[in-house]
Amino acid sequence: MQVVSAVPYPGRVLPPHLPCPAAFRRGGGATTLGLCHATLNARGTTAAVFAFRAAAEPITVVSVDLGDRSYPIYIGAGLLDNGALLRKHVPGVTALIVTNETIAPFYLERAVAALADGGGIRVEVVVLPDGEEYKTMEVLMTVFNKALDAKLDRQTTFVALGGGVIGDMTGYAAASYQRGVHFIQIPTTVMAMVDSSVGGKTGVNHPAGKNMIGAFYQPRCVLIDTDTLKTLPDREFASGVAEIVKYGLIRDADFFEWQEANVDKLILREDDALVYAIERSCANKAEVVVLDEKEGGVRATLNLGHTFGHAIETGIGYGEWLHGEAVSVGMVMAVDMSERLGWVDSSIKERTIALLNKCKLPVVVPKCMTVQTFHDLMAVDKKAANGKLRLILLRGELGECVFTGDFDQDKLSETLEAFVGESR
Amino acid sequence: MQVVSAVPYPGRVLPPHLPCPAAFRRGGGATTLGLCHATLNARGTTAAVFAFRAAAEPITVVSVDLGDRSYPIYIGAGLLDNGALLRKHVPGVTALIVTNETIAPFYLERAVAALADGGGIRVEVVVLPDGEEYKTMEVLMTVFNKALDAKLDRQTTFVALGGGVIGDMTGYAAASYQRGVHFIQIPTTVMAMVDSSVGGKTGVNHPAGKNMIGAFYQPRCVLIDTDTLKTLPDREFASGVAEIVKYGLIRDADFFEWQEANVDKLILREDDALVYAIERSCANKAEVVVLDEKEGGVRATLNLGHTFGHAIETGIGYGEWLHGEAVSVGMVMAVDMSERLGWVDSSIKERTIALLNKCKLPVVVPKCMTVQTFHDLMAVDKKAANGKLRLILLRGELGECVFTGDFDQDKLSETLEAFVGESR
Repeated sequence: MQVVSAVPYPGRVLPPHLPCPAAFRRGGGATTLGLCHATLNARGTTAAVFAFRAAAEPITVVSVDLGDRSYPIYIGAGLLDNGALLRKHVPGVTALIVTNETIAPFYLERAVAALADGGGIRVEVVVLPDGEEYKTMEVLMTVFNKALDAKLDRQTTFVALGGGVIGDMTGYAAASYQRGVHFIQIPTTVMAMVDSSVGGKTGVNHPAGKNMIGAFYQPRCVLIDTDTLKTLPDREFASGVAEIVKYGLIRDADFFEWQEANVDKLILREDDALVYAIERSCANKAEVVVLDEKEGGVRATLNLGHTFGHAIETGIGYGEWLHGEAVSVGMVMAVDMSERLGWVDSSIKERTIALLNKCKLPVVVPKCMTVQTFHDLMAVDKKAANGKLRLILLRGELGECVFTGDFDQDKLSETLEAFVGESR
Repeated sequence: MQVVSAVPYPGRVLPPHLPCPAAFRRGGGATTLGLCHATLNARGTTAAVFAFRAAAEPITVVSVDLGDRSYPIYIGAGLLDNGALLRKHVPGVTALIVTNETIAPFYLERAVAALADGGGIRVEVVVLPDGEEYKTMEVLMTVFNKALDAKLDRQTTFVALGGGVIGDMTGYAAASYQRGVHFIQIPTTVMAMVDSSVGGKTGVNHPAGKNMIGAFYQPRCVLIDTDTLKTLPDREFASGVAEIVKYGLIRDADFFEWQEANVDKLILREDDALVYAIERSCANKAEVVVLDEKEGGVRATLNLGHTFGHAIETGIGYGEWLHGEAVSVGMVMAVDMSERLGWVDSSIKERTIALLNKCKLPVVVPKCMTVQTFHDLMAVDKKAANGKLRLILLRGELGECVFTGDFDQDKLSETLEAFVGESR
């Protein structure tokens, strides 16, 4: 490993706006290592953020603490070339990189070189077609075919190099190949970095529904090289930022304020802003996942805006809008409804819309959606219980939310009417 | 649940030959419940055998202790009609029975009735073609299709009704559907009862190898109705008995002696003998699996005779011999080699052959096998490490074995020569 020395928090390049965020101070729980500047979780040592200074580049580490399935998320510019760091998590002498035809020309060669260790590790590659429509069992079989052709054994490591689709498919392949092999994620989109990299959800789609076949399976590590975002198209970049905004709204007011102050740097993809936003997002998600790994309760709050958003995605046809774009509008709708219920101050909605606008994310429902379409599509939401719709809504101060089916139905209708009307 | 009262061990119908087996006495660890007559494992409370008297029928219970993935194995004649017992392990209001076209005419109606609770639980059914050649991802997709057509949600329970193929496929489907739903096994072959019902191995075959795609996934319970063995063809029955003999050889001398004394009753499929042999086999396997859930070490000992056996299965073409038939010959070869190494007394080989003969199992290598074929096929065994073949061999008293690559290679050659010569 190239991390030759480690220094505490001030040694790291920090966004100047917030040298020691309040959310970090609120922890107070036991630190896991002397290096740890603070724990994030007031309820115990569940997710911790460490700061190292490496020989070549600074590395930020978010630790996802899931007992014997714990793993680190490494974040930094240029990490893809840090082969020693990667290979620390490759127990055997073989690896299989799964990527797609869009990502391969940019990053495959570097990933192979980093893993191969000058030939010490045999690195096999499978390149899948790019797109959600290829997230199928049929395409997944080509991964198994490749692994078996190459005679990879149970000690092999599957490495996902790409966005959410590649991560989900590779994770499920790793969970299933010979009943489970090692797994590493190298996400190359904001969405995959701040959402898919934490939580262990893997799988493929079925014609009857998204992610219907899969597994909960944790990686051995996640390596996030923020440089890989430099080639990401603007719309995809913004789509991932919607999830970053979400973490601020549901549980981290300080982070929301940091975003308001640093949105320009974030959109310009400045290294420091990227690293901090990703670190803070992963840490927030890790805290929630540690509390609720299999999605029984609090994990549902990560779906702020998603019920409205899924209705939009389905209503206008999958693939028209990116996931984060639909979530962006969905979050505005959830905040609007929260305000109508009298649960939050009206300034929160204004700030949310202002921030999303600056992130170049949509805040208005697409024209083809009707109130009836919303009602119909939201009725089949997975979070419904006994036929009753449940939503994540803001309640209280900025950064506080509830997951509930106990709300005035009229307010839901008012929100739908307002947004559908607005889009005419 | 129809178990209205529970009495200690003597209340149960016991094989007269062995009222209180020494292996049970050797335990001495803490009992899990007052009902427990003894623990089986001297190293702690890992697997326990309980005896109940139910309203309708006696139920023997083997508990597989895997922390929050623990589950009971219920064993008894007529249990398939004990709906209350089954439904205790169905948390939701829907279930999907997966079975095949051979089993369905005999037992499907009863299984549906037992689960349905007069309509309280919606029971869906999918009937697969019968045979190892259908243990594929393609056929597995029909299970997912059915589950999605029937709009089964995450709270549903998949129920395997059949032999090992159905159990493996249903388990993997349950592990993967919506990232994991509840799972119950109702095995209907000896092999599935004494082998597949413990250990959580699930999966499907790939053209390049058996069980190459799958998961470790534990059921909520296993329900073994010994009556279902009454319709099992003789060869399939004997094949499963080979695994029963194996447990005696590798770790349970008393059980081996019980088999020698009761083999006629076992072959005649008398209820008491069946229940006892299955209980003792499951308890033995449970102890091993608890020590080594993911097959890192001691679990390999469950493969006594399997390396030789797999070579035979592959050498003569899959499907010619049943798995247990090949394992039977393989065990004789392993014992023969152990004797040549001077590790066991020659009487053990004689007794093993005599017992297997009475079980109507083969003890001679099929004619088409050559020494070279054995060498070639054994070289690719999954248990090999760094190119060195490792075998499970007997060493010491009856019921003691080792898993080792440290043996005189000449003795292996002598065994191969002897068996190949013998079959000419």
